[in-house]
Amino acid sequence: MSTRDVRVLEGPEKLRMLLERGNGELAAFLREQHPVDLADMVEELPDDLLVAVFERLGPEQSALVLGELDREARARIVRLLGKERVGDIVEAMDTDDAADLLGELSPEQAGQILGELQAEEAAEVRELLHYEPDTAGGIMTTEYVAVNQGMTAQEAIEHLRQRAPDAETVYYVYVVDDDEHLLGVLSLRDLIVAPPETPLKHIMRTKVVSVFHDQDQEEVARIVSRYDLLAVPVIDHQRRLLGVVTVDDVIDVLEEEATEDALRAAAVSPGEEGGDLRGGVWRLARPRLPWLLALLFMEFLAGSVIDRFRGGFDGVTLALLSVFIPIMAGEAGNGATQALAVVVRGLATGEIAEREVLAVVWREARVGLLAGLITGVVLFGVTTLWKGDLRLGLVVGLALALNLPVAKMLGGLFPIVIHRLGIDPAVASGPFITTVTDFTSMLTYFTVAALLLTQLG
Amino acid sequence: MSTRDVRVLEGPEKLRMLLERGNGELAAFLREQHPVDLADMVEELPDDLLVAVFERLGPEQSALVLGELDREARARIVRLLGKERVGDIVEAMDTDDAADLLGELSPEQAGQILGELQAEEAAEVRELLHYEPDTAGGIMTTEYVAVNQGMTAQEAIEHLRQRAPDAETVYYVYVVDDDEHLLGVLSLRDLIVAPPETPLKHIMRTKVVSVFHDQDQEEVARIVSRYDLLAVPVIDHQRRLLGVVTVDDVIDVLEEEATEDALRAAAVSPGEEGGDLRGGVWRLARPRLPWLLALLFMEFLAGSVIDRFRGGFDGVTLALLSVFIPIMAGEAGNGATQALAVVVRGLATGEIAEREVLAVVWREARVGLLAGLITGVVLFGVTTLWKGDLRLGLVVGLALALNLPVAKMLGGLFPIVIHRLGIDPAVASGPFITTVTDFTSMLTYFTVAALLLTQLG
Repeated sequence: MSTRDVRVLEGPEKLRMLLERGNGELAAFLREQHPVDLADMVEELPDDLLVAVFERLGPEQSALVLGELDREARARIVRLLGKERVGDIVEAMDTDDAADLLGELSPEQAGQILGELQAEEAAEVRELLHYEPDTAGGIMTTEYVAVNQGMTAQEAIEHLRQRAPDAETVYYVYVVDDDEHLLGVLSLRDLIVAPPETPLKHIMRTKVVSVFHDQDQEEVARIVSRYDLLAVPVIDHQRRLLGVVTVDDVIDVLEEEATEDALRAAAVSPGEEGGDLRGGVWRLARPRLPWLLALLFMEFLAGSVIDRFRGGFDGVTLALLSVFIPIMAGEAGNGATQALAVVVRGLATGEIAEREVLAVVWREARVGLLAGLITGVVLFGVTTLWKGDLRLGLVVGLALALNLPVAKMLGGLFPIVIHRLGIDPAVASGPFITTVTDFTSMLTYFTVAALLLTQLG
Repeated sequence: MSTRDVRVLEGPEKLRMLLERGNGELAAFLREQHPVDLADMVEELPDDLLVAVFERLGPEQSALVLGELDREARARIVRLLGKERVGDIVEAMDTDDAADLLGELSPEQAGQILGELQAEEAAEVRELLHYEPDTAGGIMTTEYVAVNQGMTAQEAIEHLRQRAPDAETVYYVYVVDDDEHLLGVLSLRDLIVAPPETPLKHIMRTKVVSVFHDQDQEEVARIVSRYDLLAVPVIDHQRRLLGVVTVDDVIDVLEEEATEDALRAAAVSPGEEGGDLRGGVWRLARPRLPWLLALLFMEFLAGSVIDRFRGGFDGVTLALLSVFIPIMAGEAGNGATQALAVVVRGLATGEIAEREVLAVVWREARVGLLAGLITGVVLFGVTTLWKGDLRLGLVVGLALALNLPVAKMLGGLFPIVIHRLGIDPAVASGPFITTVTDFTSMLTYFTVAALLLTQLG
């Protein structure tokens, strides 16, 4: 643990103490905190103390802290501080954070705050608000450094000296023509190392990885990650430079998507409140209920298989067979879940190409057959010893051996088909696939049982 | 899609064509490829063509491509090119990539290649090999820029001009004393904006977020993500600067951990071959089989509940009850999976503190009760209509209403308990929790059935 981590733990209590005393120590304490740590500390404060903290922070620090707060605390601040103060803070924010904040407010509130901003800043933020939040345009900032292709290295450094305090990322310097078309890129390092009089066009790299403003944020994240970039320029379809997506926002996208995928995979619709354990019972239940109801109806398929077959066995036999229903359905579900996870990751990392459907299904069939043979033999042995009935042992062992390849094929097939249909393979995959294998495993189990026995002693 | 993506698709075919023709176009084609794209193209080439490509790449480009190849292709290259050529390439690699490569080889191979390196480079790489691969030390590079606190801004820029081509990241400049103790940090931007004669100690920031060399890579990733850093310095316990972890490696860590978690959650032990669909059947089955066998035995618990109760019902009643076993177990599993996913994400994002166990379990109980009441009423209605039996409808509806709160409490409790035991909550969570709820749901179902009826017509 770094010393900073210890401070995080102590922070909230110390802050409350200092706020109550209200002396000069508070200013010093606030000044030395990292905005993200400060955001953690103030989120839980009551309204009066929250206002007291923001009254002591300058607009710049307020802007940084506001950018790190959760949505709920942000809405409180906006309500408590009033439009003039909030306008000052928004003025100091990076344009992408400012647009995110205003996008969360009602159109009236947003309009009032935009009215407080300087014309140029207001125009930039207003423009950002037009992009879909989940696209490159929605997460880009307009604070980047662009230089004209006509400049020299020296002139570019001079330009940077003046622009730097404003630009979120100066690690890449973009070279444009008079109409803002993206021509090339330079690192700050390229500029410093080059002789001062070198024209930019001689040192710029012309192969620039870029994204379109309407590209999905997940794709943008993948590109930044693939090419190890610190930022990626965002262009329109005429290759005009619009903004920049920075690597810190890319990490946020990756984490956000991971959360959403994990919830979706477990049949919870991720929404604003999806993962929020602080909500009321109804807010927590709402994103889960539609799935539970849909899956309930799907489970009737498995039930109806048993219903169809139950007439074919006498009472004692069916009673014995029913003991193994959870084992059969459970193992099929487990096997399918494994296959699904391996294939979903394979698709995500690009190790499996979509056209390899048949190869994947065939491989899962063989893995399932191997796993089925081994677990089937074990189940045969245990059952025969437990129930003292060789025929029952044979039925359940054989059924499991047949069940696993079917389950694994389905588990492998599902994400590929879903992916090909253009749906995120994470959607409800776990509960969905186990519900499907509940059906297939019952069908296999009772078919094997009907073929091998109709009466057991 | 950017134009680069189109090139990726066309690349492999074009490369093969150019290799077969062997003309000057090939050199131009190779020169303009990004190393990661080139790595994708050459991975699948046969040995002779692979060697042909590397013979045409200079050591620098070879180093970049080698760093992006998968483990298997890297081993092939090392085998095919021989230690002298590989030594030249390793010499050109960043030290962290070089250490990663050598760490994959046999000690003899690694020793031979180390022997080909210049003494200084060999010593640095050798040192990196001592750190555990999953720690800050294991993923750091020693190519960073450090300047002495006695320098001025101008001197530091001069130092950088000379060191820059070697350093992986010059975006942060670290300030150290004569004994390499980390004192502060400067951005390149700070240096450029400052008047040339300013002493570094007046402009450096002294609050440096840093990590210890033995800190887990996942923690390092969380810190870089939390503080939006481009790199984090790695220090020993005397605060001496050892190296730097860069944000691109952090993204790799986040993706690697996401893959491992997803596989573990689905009861696949992630190993070197865990997610590798190119392996043989046995290599694919091995990380799954132990879990399938363990879960098979756990499923016997659910089976033995049915076995215990089956004597208490007549044949027809039990046959009817068995129709609803998959529905009962399935919905309990789905409900538990949802709760588990929400709590796992809550723990990961820090929204749920570990001490909140009771609050979480209580909330899940109420969510489960609400979900149970709604799905229970639906099941009651459908069953009564389907089977024309009000008592059976009551039994299954009530059992489901009781099942879901139990399942959701278990789903919420499991990751917290596991986390408190210091185990990664992802471990086999999906299949494990559904196996547990198979047991609890059978217990609830048959208890309710035994209480409400022993005979159904």
